[in-house]
Amino acid sequence: MAVYTEIADDELAQFIDSYGLGSVVSCKGIAEGVENTNYLVGTSSGQFILTLYEKRVAAGDLPFFLGLMEHLASKGLSCPTPVRDGEGRNLRELAGRPAALVTFLEGVWLRKPQAQHCHKVGVALAKLHEAGRDFALSRPNALGPEGWPPLFERFRAQADQVAPGLGGTIEEELTQLLRDWPQRLPAGVIHADLFPDNVFFRGDQLSGLIDFYFACNDLFAYDIAVCLNAWCFTPQVVFDRDKGAALLAGYQSVRPLGEAERAALPTLARGAALRFLLTRAHDWVHTPAGALVVKHDPVPYLQRLQFHAGVVAGGSASDYGLGPAS
Amino acid sequence: MAVYTEIADDELAQFIDSYGLGSVVSCKGIAEGVENTNYLVGTSSGQFILTLYEKRVAAGDLPFFLGLMEHLASKGLSCPTPVRDGEGRNLRELAGRPAALVTFLEGVWLRKPQAQHCHKVGVALAKLHEAGRDFALSRPNALGPEGWPPLFERFRAQADQVAPGLGGTIEEELTQLLRDWPQRLPAGVIHADLFPDNVFFRGDQLSGLIDFYFACNDLFAYDIAVCLNAWCFTPQVVFDRDKGAALLAGYQSVRPLGEAERAALPTLARGAALRFLLTRAHDWVHTPAGALVVKHDPVPYLQRLQFHAGVVAGGSASDYGLGPAS
Repeated sequence: MAVYTEIADDELAQFIDSYGLGSVVSCKGIAEGVENTNYLVGTSSGQFILTLYEKRVAAGDLPFFLGLMEHLASKGLSCPTPVRDGEGRNLRELAGRPAALVTFLEGVWLRKPQAQHCHKVGVALAKLHEAGRDFALSRPNALGPEGWPPLFERFRAQADQVAPGLGGTIEEELTQLLRDWPQRLPAGVIHADLFPDNVFFRGDQLSGLIDFYFACNDLFAYDIAVCLNAWCFTPQVVFDRDKGAALLAGYQSVRPLGEAERAALPTLARGAALRFLLTRAHDWVHTPAGALVVKHDPVPYLQRLQFHAGVVAGGSASDYGLGPAS
Repeated sequence: MAVYTEIADDELAQFIDSYGLGSVVSCKGIAEGVENTNYLVGTSSGQFILTLYEKRVAAGDLPFFLGLMEHLASKGLSCPTPVRDGEGRNLRELAGRPAALVTFLEGVWLRKPQAQHCHKVGVALAKLHEAGRDFALSRPNALGPEGWPPLFERFRAQADQVAPGLGGTIEEELTQLLRDWPQRLPAGVIHADLFPDNVFFRGDQLSGLIDFYFACNDLFAYDIAVCLNAWCFTPQVVFDRDKGAALLAGYQSVRPLGEAERAALPTLARGAALRFLLTRAHDWVHTPAGALVVKHDPVPYLQRLQFHAGVVAGGSASDYGLGPAS
């Protein structure tokens, strides 16, 4: 929820002009997304999102992100598509920042998604995995298991200020998860952050996916695990098995899970909960008072983690609503 | 820069439905305005601004604000126009807040306005004053001279933390301004907050005025004084006489100033600087760390105040670029 960078009038006009989309009709800062500055720009040709990449996004990763959106769109996946300027560039500079213009995706994100929406998210996620298979670039997951210990070190001393005993819990989880993490599952390009605010609907129809700025190469089933955490818990952090079943059935209607993936799902879900617990706890400790971002409470991810740890210990993926293998 | 209130999907759909404008196609929180929550809502009929009024706006004032926008639009002034629902209401409730839907005004606000733009602002301000003459409702200026002493009391003890000696300066200014404040100048509906972010341009053409939530009944020339402060100083807080001359000439091309207004302009400009100094210093002291608003630095308004005090002491309105009376 932030606009970090203001754009001078003449700079904006000149920038938009170079795309051949007509002149600027309107420009509004958007209060969504915490990493970058986004403007909704109206031109005589329609609406576009102008993103200025702030320092949390590594400039070297931008060709991967923009190329991926272009690739997925060319495969028929509905997502914002980078626009190329008169010289064929999809990555530019504006107000001293890397900048890109992408097409505007219609739809709204759902504050209260239902099981039927989870089914559609599952379908879309599997289509994304399939569509990404022949994308030429790759990017390691900086927030995968190898990234967790150094991230933890950056707030370890203050962890117990976030929740009593949190430091010890994370330490034990790291030991167990790094030991048990599956290595040889099907992998490819994953979204890695497919939360409800990154999925748009028009009415009950899924209209597209946005925000590919955590996308990377990793296990497909880990992406499902992220979605189980993001979509299938109640506000009171109780797992909603109907939503889990719908999401998994939707996914498998496009890409059925293999036996090893099914077996690994509880561990992957536990790891996904830890990943968001780590970044939220880190930001909770390090975001300066007065910063223009909403801090996300880490505790609900500690609760998710504990739920998944229980499934790992004494249950199976059927606890998520996963049906029998076909 | 804030979205304070989230709207549930079903509530939004139902709300928009009642206007007969088609279904919701998109909805984005806008990072502009510090008082209210604003969404840019796209429907099959076009774009609209949905405003949820947060607690800083008195609900009792909303019929004045919405009625004024409707009145001004009916007189041909370009501004957002409240839309009426199927039952003829322009003021509704949504997510537990008073809410209104208004038309979307094209254009962008200028980060670096030039003298030619100041001329157009002067013209628009005078047209607003003329168009408001026969508006039936009225609203006193809560931030006029009578409101200044109680506002000062709310941060007097901490004033010197904002700038050394600020408390004493404000005290002296209040004494002098309340004594010298003009009483019998032409008055009517004024905008009272016509800063650059409230004036939209398409290219170099003024496309309309927004944000009438400080509008009230007060001296017309005081509204000009607000604009001189808002539009005619350099970033280094030096008065730009070319811009002042342009703004005043634009205004007078529609509504020439009388002799008493001309004489009072330096005192009004000094008072307008004090009014923004007071609210900014108050907010500087009282805005909690971590609040989702940008705190405006009060000091540039102390510097403006000092400039105007010099004009009152040894100059005249011609120091602002005001030409001879016609």
